[in-house]
Amino acid sequence: MYKQYKLGACLPTFGSCADRFCLSGYGRGGRTMEEMLELAKQVEGLDGLELVSNWHVNDKNINYVAKLFKDAGFKICMIVPDLWTQAKWGKGSIAAPDAKTRKQAIVEIKKSIDWAAELGCEFVDVWPGQDGYDYPFQAHYDDAWKWLRDGIEECALYNKKVKVLVEYKMKEPRTHCFVSNAAKVILLINGITNTGCLLDVGHSLAAGENMAEAASLLAQYKVLSYIHLNDNYRSWDDDLLVSSVHVVEYLELVYWLKEVKYDGWLTLDIFPYREDKVPAARNSFEWLKFLFEKIEQMGSEEIRAVIRQSDGNLVSSLVRKMLGG
Amino acid sequence: MYKQYKLGACLPTFGSCADRFCLSGYGRGGRTMEEMLELAKQVEGLDGLELVSNWHVNDKNINYVAKLFKDAGFKICMIVPDLWTQAKWGKGSIAAPDAKTRKQAIVEIKKSIDWAAELGCEFVDVWPGQDGYDYPFQAHYDDAWKWLRDGIEECALYNKKVKVLVEYKMKEPRTHCFVSNAAKVILLINGITNTGCLLDVGHSLAAGENMAEAASLLAQYKVLSYIHLNDNYRSWDDDLLVSSVHVVEYLELVYWLKEVKYDGWLTLDIFPYREDKVPAARNSFEWLKFLFEKIEQMGSEEIRAVIRQSDGNLVSSLVRKMLGG
Amino acid sequence: MYKQYKLGACLPTFGSCADRFCLSGYGRGGRTMEEMLELAKQVEGLDGLELVSNWHVNDKNINYVAKLFKDAGFKICMIVPDLWTQAKWGKGSIAAPDAKTRKQAIVEIKKSIDWAAELGCEFVDVWPGQDGYDYPFQAHYDDAWKWLRDGIEECALYNKKVKVLVEYKMKEPRTHCFVSNAAKVILLINGITNTGCLLDVGHSLAAGENMAEAASLLAQYKVLSYIHLNDNYRSWDDDLLVSSVHVVEYLELVYWLKEVKYDGWLTLDIFPYREDKVPAARNSFEWLKFLFEKIEQMGSEEIRAVIRQSDGNLVSSLVRKMLGG
Amino acid sequence: MYKQYKLGACLPTFGSCADRFCLSGYGRGGRTMEEMLELAKQVEGLDGLELVSNWHVNDKNINYVAKLFKDAGFKICMIVPDLWTQAKWGKGSIAAPDAKTRKQAIVEIKKSIDWAAELGCEFVDVWPGQDGYDYPFQAHYDDAWKWLRDGIEECALYNKKVKVLVEYKMKEPRTHCFVSNAAKVILLINGITNTGCLLDVGHSLAAGENMAEAASLLAQYKVLSYIHLNDNYRSWDDDLLVSSVHVVEYLELVYWLKEVKYDGWLTLDIFPYREDKVPAARNSFEWLKFLFEKIEQMGSEEIRAVIRQSDGNLVSSLVRKMLGG
Repeated sequence: MYKQYKLGACLPTFGSCADRFCLSGYGRGGRTMEEMLELAKQVEGLDGLELVSNWHVNDKNINYVAKLFKDAGFKICMIVPDLWTQAKWGKGSIAAPDAKTRKQAIVEIKKSIDWAAELGCEFVDVWPGQDGYDYPFQAHYDDAWKWLRDGIEECALYNKKVKVLVEYKMKEPRTHCFVSNAAKVILLINGITNTGCLLDVGHSLAAGENMAEAASLLAQYKVLSYIHLNDNYRSWDDDLLVSSVHVVEYLELVYWLKEVKYDGWLTLDIFPYREDKVPAARNSFEWLKFLFEKIEQMGSEEIRAVIRQSDGNLVSSLVRKMLGG
Repeated sequence: MYKQYKLGACLPTFGSCADRFCLSGYGRGGRTMEEMLELAKQVEGLDGLELVSNWHVNDKNINYVAKLFKDAGFKICMIVPDLWTQAKWGKGSIAAPDAKTRKQAIVEIKKSIDWAAELGCEFVDVWPGQDGYDYPFQAHYDDAWKWLRDGIEECALYNKKVKVLVEYKMKEPRTHCFVSNAAKVILLINGITNTGCLLDVGHSLAAGENMAEAASLLAQYKVLSYIHLNDNYRSWDDDLLVSSVHVVEYLELVYWLKEVKYDGWLTLDIFPYREDKVPAARNSFEWLKFLFEKIEQMGSEEIRAVIRQSDGNLVSSLVRKMLGG
Repeated sequence: MYKQYKLGACLPTFGSCADRFCLSGYGRGGRTMEEMLELAKQVEGLDGLELVSNWHVNDKNINYVAKLFKDAGFKICMIVPDLWTQAKWGKGSIAAPDAKTRKQAIVEIKKSIDWAAELGCEFVDVWPGQDGYDYPFQAHYDDAWKWLRDGIEECALYNKKVKVLVEYKMKEPRTHCFVSNAAKVILLINGITNTGCLLDVGHSLAAGENMAEAASLLAQYKVLSYIHLNDNYRSWDDDLLVSSVHVVEYLELVYWLKEVKYDGWLTLDIFPYREDKVPAARNSFEWLKFLFEKIEQMGSEEIRAVIRQSDGNLVSSLVRKMLGG
Repeated sequence: MYKQYKLGACLPTFGSCADRFCLSGYGRGGRTMEEMLELAKQVEGLDGLELVSNWHVNDKNINYVAKLFKDAGFKICMIVPDLWTQAKWGKGSIAAPDAKTRKQAIVEIKKSIDWAAELGCEFVDVWPGQDGYDYPFQAHYDDAWKWLRDGIEECALYNKKVKVLVEYKMKEPRTHCFVSNAAKVILLINGITNTGCLLDVGHSLAAGENMAEAASLLAQYKVLSYIHLNDNYRSWDDDLLVSSVHVVEYLELVYWLKEVKYDGWLTLDIFPYREDKVPAARNSFEWLKFLFEKIEQMGSEEIRAVIRQSDGNLVSSLVRKMLGG
């Protein structure tokens, strides 16, 4: 059953979900953390919430935050250092060309690690989304890669109780982000203890990956640490409802999560711009439940036997059967 | 029920399915027309077959072909003029820069029309796949568009009993084909009687279209005349089994085929490179049956009511329910 | 010389250029219209500016705006009705499922037409960016197309002195926008007088088009009315500096603009998120000048002669020669 | 000067260049090795040729081949084991689900290594193009990755005089190939001596990479061993003439090749379907010469200084200046 997994959501899922055209968001804008939390409470089965540093948690409010979420019955499953919402990160964070900015980014991550430790949260999510380039000749690739490694290493050494995860994404907000795919994360953190990878399904799809294959690769290298769920049309990070587009690939992902014995968080990172937030989260979890049930009804052994034959016809029949055909 | 539709297949589906690396094909190469026909007979429910001019039908064998397929119980649902398998079409057919080639192409199409008329087949499929360009500055766009229009018009006037369909595709074999999407076909044949559009689902996907929307647009302009079924990953015409990837989009297509009262052929244009051909065709029709059943179980009225609300949450629940969730 | 063209820019090019992650923008946020105008003045050769309704112009400030831009020596080359920055347009504007919203959208466009007339501006730019869908089964395609046509028609009839242009885009902010490519615009406005098409180069690239071919097609149907310049990597509307990526395709576009005798505006629609705005605009115009010079140095006759041969080798040599090789 | 590099070409560049529609090729089909060699001789500056095992070289003709190419003044720069032109490799080679096929693939590679050693060629190019999958649930990702590693390792140990290179590609002939990007190759061969990576520019582009960044990454891990040149439109391996589309990215690649002190082969892997082969090769080398000249005229120091500032405006001006603006 999928309920052996811990189910999470990013808190901003319950916020205003703005884009570059409608900057105040399509829904009701300006919700407070408390209001978003109230919405989160309406999602049955939700176990934890991701918070973003500074936005939601800071030195002053940390005790308040700890109590607030505890009282609401939620774990804080992730602290995300804010390396991307302010103009100062515009040219990069831990791989910024400017040395001072790189230092600041590490300070920011360490603060997040402190807060995570205090909140009993075992992960921080380093998403170097601003670390990249928009034009050819705009980046010094050799330096950038070394800065990324050095930055991650310094943060990973900081506090063994909090694991430093790296989230990859091929593009957006830069047209090219350095840490673009699963294999690159494995390379990047190779040999650095206390690190792992955050696999965001939509980022994987937009990187041209099959997310089940990405999960398998990460698991083989022992770095599949955390998973973000959403969906898109492969050319952009649309952050749609879970499994709303890629039902077949999602079925395969769920099968492989069981195969590689992943037992971590399954956390929504959806952006329901025009949808009501609570139903969007519920809907996504209902899809997840649906996927697990279909895989379990078919049985891993049966599926494994089909995979072993690697025959397009058998595979396609299998999927149809799983979906009630 | 989906059996109100006539089910077809392209005869080469049962052939060797080669690609540019494995030119002799992944399966048993060199099957004769008769051998392919024998395979086709094993596909339950198949009503008709598409033939390619010169490959399968020519002036000498036409009586033989007529009898052969009639005896086998198949309609010939389409004659495809061969405008793309010979080096002479390498720079184009009806829009080739060379006037002689353009003329030859029209001769070729007219021959196909003659054969179609004789075989009681109501369509020829003009696929100007070689008409396009590979590099910037390689095509005279204004001229090409006029040549396309003139060529189609001349063919459409030739014999009112045989409708001239135009099949669009964005790329392959050229990196850019002129007739690339549904709207372009509507423009191209606008005002020319005895014409229509062949919607190939994979071509639609690879053109960045949603095929249900394309079907609706074509139907509004009264030119949705024929449909090819297959699937792919949107960046190339992979010609995979029907609905093996885009289950959700395929459900929507089937719904819209019923809405727009399409009652023509549903013909497989799959390329099962590494798969046994007969099971590949059967499998594809089983998917089709599955899709129609799911839509019918939900009911068009119910679906229409959800569409009217245009709400992402309702839509995604609807799909899950259709799939047994 | 390229200076026979009128050179424009969208006023927000000089604004804060925010994205969904950095909502306050990467540069200095919150510039007033007057401050943006001051920046625009620093761009040599700039002839006109595009304004967005309500943001920049409204019933109360119209006289002030008229004088402000006149005194600065700028034409107002376009009024863009705001159909996309407010939550109320989240499910569409002129093709919204809700009839009241559709009416409101038309009111909004008519107000823009009034302002345009008063400001001596000959165009409004209807960009139905919110008119589309994010999920399968979310849109009623037949209705939407009719609403689009009816809406455009009503607006086009409103005031003959102001032409109603339609700007196409395949995606963003919706994952699928209805008016997605050049051919669709031609179909949409076919038979409606006082209309035209706005070709945005980046939208064309992201729609899988070659923009030179799109320009030729639009010109053949007499609807190439206005052009937006920018660049991207084809999977998203990155709004990069002009010709920063697609130098070869841009050369071809410039050649075709001359061939089809386009003599309208060439207007920047760039989003220099992390760049200084004035140099970004200057740079873009220097690219434009460069492209025109290269085409003129080679000569249209020479280029035409190469195109006529449609040979990949000749074409590629030609481009290299134009670039000084 | 670019002539410090050794310039190569794949012998089939001078062959018939067929695709799946025009199986006999667009040019004159059926050229013998000797005829292709004659064409190659007409390409000024060409230093070496790549041969494919069995097609061009085998146990019986090896002495003949050695003499033939030596007499013509060519090095044999690469032996490519044929793991993709026969139906027996349809479901994979070194990662085929069937153990016997995997063994055969290794035998094949070792034969190529023997021939390479005998011909004084220092590389074999293992391109596991058939190793992948077309449908979800068709591959056992964990096993496949292990088989790939084991296979490469066994081959790399076989003869220290011949280095085993791995060429990556995201898709084609499979819709998904296992060894899809640069980082994956680094992971795959990590810790296996006598291995390296073959960077094919078109494969890199189609994998969503920037090839300059890929070259930098490979060089940092000391595995940038060999380079294939061509171009495409990023969605498919079009194998167009060098730099015919991506001039800006190609300039950046050339700059980085110098930065990372790459001094190996620069080999054409183009497929000039509709073009004359000798001019296509010449043209490609003229582009290469052009690119090196432009970079050298600007000077690495100047370029480096601009990169260090990572400013979109400066970068774009730099490119324009390099191109004569």
